[in-house]
Amino acid sequence: MPEQSPPTAPPRRRGRPRRGSTGSTDSRAQILASAIEEFGALGYDGATIRGIALRAGVDSALVHHYFGTKADLFAESVGAPIRPDLEVRTLLAGPRAELGASIVRYILETWERPDVRKRGVVMLRAALGSRVTAPLLAGFLSKELLGPIAAALEVPDAELRAALTASQIGGLIVTRYVLKLDAIASASVDDLVDRIGPTIQRYLTEE
Amino acid sequence: MPEQSPPTAPPRRRGRPRRGSTGSTDSRAQILASAIEEFGALGYDGATIRGIALRAGVDSALVHHYFGTKADLFAESVGAPIRPDLEVRTLLAGPRAELGASIVRYILETWERPDVRKRGVVMLRAALGSRVTAPLLAGFLSKELLGPIAAALEVPDAELRAALTASQIGGLIVTRYVLKLDAIASASVDDLVDRIGPTIQRYLTEE
Repeated sequence: MPEQSPPTAPPRRRGRPRRGSTGSTDSRAQILASAIEEFGALGYDGATIRGIALRAGVDSALVHHYFGTKADLFAESVGAPIRPDLEVRTLLAGPRAELGASIVRYILETWERPDVRKRGVVMLRAALGSRVTAPLLAGFLSKELLGPIAAALEVPDAELRAALTASQIGGLIVTRYVLKLDAIASASVDDLVDRIGPTIQRYLTEE
Repeated sequence: MPEQSPPTAPPRRRGRPRRGSTGSTDSRAQILASAIEEFGALGYDGATIRGIALRAGVDSALVHHYFGTKADLFAESVGAPIRPDLEVRTLLAGPRAELGASIVRYILETWERPDVRKRGVVMLRAALGSRVTAPLLAGFLSKELLGPIAAALEVPDAELRAALTASQIGGLIVTRYVLKLDAIASASVDDLVDRIGPTIQRYLTEE
């Protein structure tokens, strides 16, 4: 049985191993490879932990054990440098009158970190560049980021409001960090929060 | 002399030939190839009609004769489906109080055309996807689109205002036509003009 790795092989940890994890590197790598296959084939919405476990030939519980939720597994499988889907809960729990400014500040302060910016630009280019990955990013954003924002707002057209927010935030990231348009790439974080914060505030809360 | 095409060969017209043009297809194709080389090597700002003519082994006057300005030649060499740099002059000459709405409406009505949308998405993907083409797009936008907008505004920070406009318009195009986020892809043009027009108006004109 040459394909089977010996169960005594020392586990080589990658990513963010959970405390107490005892699984082999092989199962972990196989699950990640299966996740990439499943997300690519079925999109973010269509993919399931059960389907990924089936492809990997392991139990669903092992997938949850190693990787947590579907969002966690997706973030790990694409190597996401930040988790805006987790952070947005904190922002939504803060003062509603400062929501626009706090979203813009969170995005900018995160992307100013060189590790996030470098990896983020590579990911964004890859995601926008293909017919497979663009819907995948859209599916993740809609389900895990814009959906919760829309659900937290008690206003009409919440989904469109969340999507408008994504359009301005996405455009900010692209013009500042990918295209690097002079005036916006050289502006201070505070200045951009002052200018763009009211836009997001209006999109999300104004009647 | 097998490389030289006979001067009596019937000219095969491509693009937008100028009335009275008598040049050969070879010169035209050579100029376009040289333009792509020059823009790629020196960026939009650095490239010159003179440099392109030198690369092509023709006179600068012939480049102007076939292609017009540097902006015209750039648009032709990348196969741009629209010329926002020309259209923006009309928009800036209209009522200042309607500038935001008219910019958003122009962008959406243009991109709703299937030919523009199809070619535009391919171009945008290519432009954002590489370290060479992203600065090229940024250079063209800054010089030919954002520069004239900034020059026409009689307000402080005109360059940042124009760049903020680019961030929201770019984000609108990416979320509606590339990522196709449900809520924004299914919204009507009128609804998006109502929602995003005031953002652009504020970026460009509010003190």
